[in-house]
Amino acid sequence: MTERGTKTGTDRPPGQRSGQPSGEICSIAATLDVIGDRWSLLILRDIFRGGHRFSEIQADLGIAKNLLSDRLSSLVEHGLLERVPYQQRPVRYDYRLTPKGADLSPALIALMGWGDRWYATNGVPTVLIHDRCGQPLELAVRCPKCEENVGPGQIRSRPGPGRSRNV
Amino acid sequence: MTERGTKTGTDRPPGQRSGQPSGEICSIAATLDVIGDRWSLLILRDIFRGGHRFSEIQADLGIAKNLLSDRLSSLVEHGLLERVPYQQRPVRYDYRLTPKGADLSPALIALMGWGDRWYATNGVPTVLIHDRCGQPLELAVRCPKCEENVGPGQIRSRPGPGRSRNV
Repeated sequence: MTERGTKTGTDRPPGQRSGQPSGEICSIAATLDVIGDRWSLLILRDIFRGGHRFSEIQADLGIAKNLLSDRLSSLVEHGLLERVPYQQRPVRYDYRLTPKGADLSPALIALMGWGDRWYATNGVPTVLIHDRCGQPLELAVRCPKCEENVGPGQIRSRPGPGRSRNV
Repeated sequence: MTERGTKTGTDRPPGQRSGQPSGEICSIAATLDVIGDRWSLLILRDIFRGGHRFSEIQADLGIAKNLLSDRLSSLVEHGLLERVPYQQRPVRYDYRLTPKGADLSPALIALMGWGDRWYATNGVPTVLIHDRCGQPLELAVRCPKCEENVGPGQIRSRPGPGRSRNV
């Protein structure tokens, strides 16, 4: 388990603990192995918002070019982004979200919602709306059986089928 | 904007860009300024799961003691955790989630859900259930007007009241 966590070792899948022969895995750790640094999440945010080119992202984030290049390569390598050429001679690329990258949308919305609730003292900077009706969206943990939203105090966990039996 | 992002400068609020006189803020960046490193999120995960003591968290994560101490202090300083003494002579503390810390629950669930969908090839390691009925929970971006779940392709954004007018 490395602190930076943007790259996993080639010999073990994301989220799998080194030194644990029982192979315990955690899906939060797996996610953080891939996108668990501030820059990767901000790069993904920019691409969600329509900034697809290296120069756009670099200008928006003020990130060093070698660092941006490194993070983009890691996100491509992990299958969250794909490079699509938009120019030949020299070849230049757009960075597009794959379905795996786009599937991080709820996580980014959840992180944004927390920042909105605790730091947007002068009103929220960005409102996410439903394209069809313009209504502000909400992110909720829901019980599909009771058809109601569930707060943190009403959540329990149980081991799933992927938990090693000898843990 | 620092890469590690666990501590913000004392002279500007989280999410506010240095060098931007217009004061543009972003709630994702604000969140990542506070919890945007792998360790902080894993520490919070452990506390959500009931590990409240320094020694428990340290043993679970295999994190260096000085690093854990630093991250816990930062999370206390930012108001996500509080220290509650459980022993005198010497004083020892439990770390408890404040309402602000507990409010990160949807973000951790979203990060876990992504790891479940993309890395839990042998089944999910942990299932979150509704305490009352035992049903597995779901996290969804919903339109409260249309009463339906909304996918990433159906989401648009518009500036909110907290966006600086001169941006």
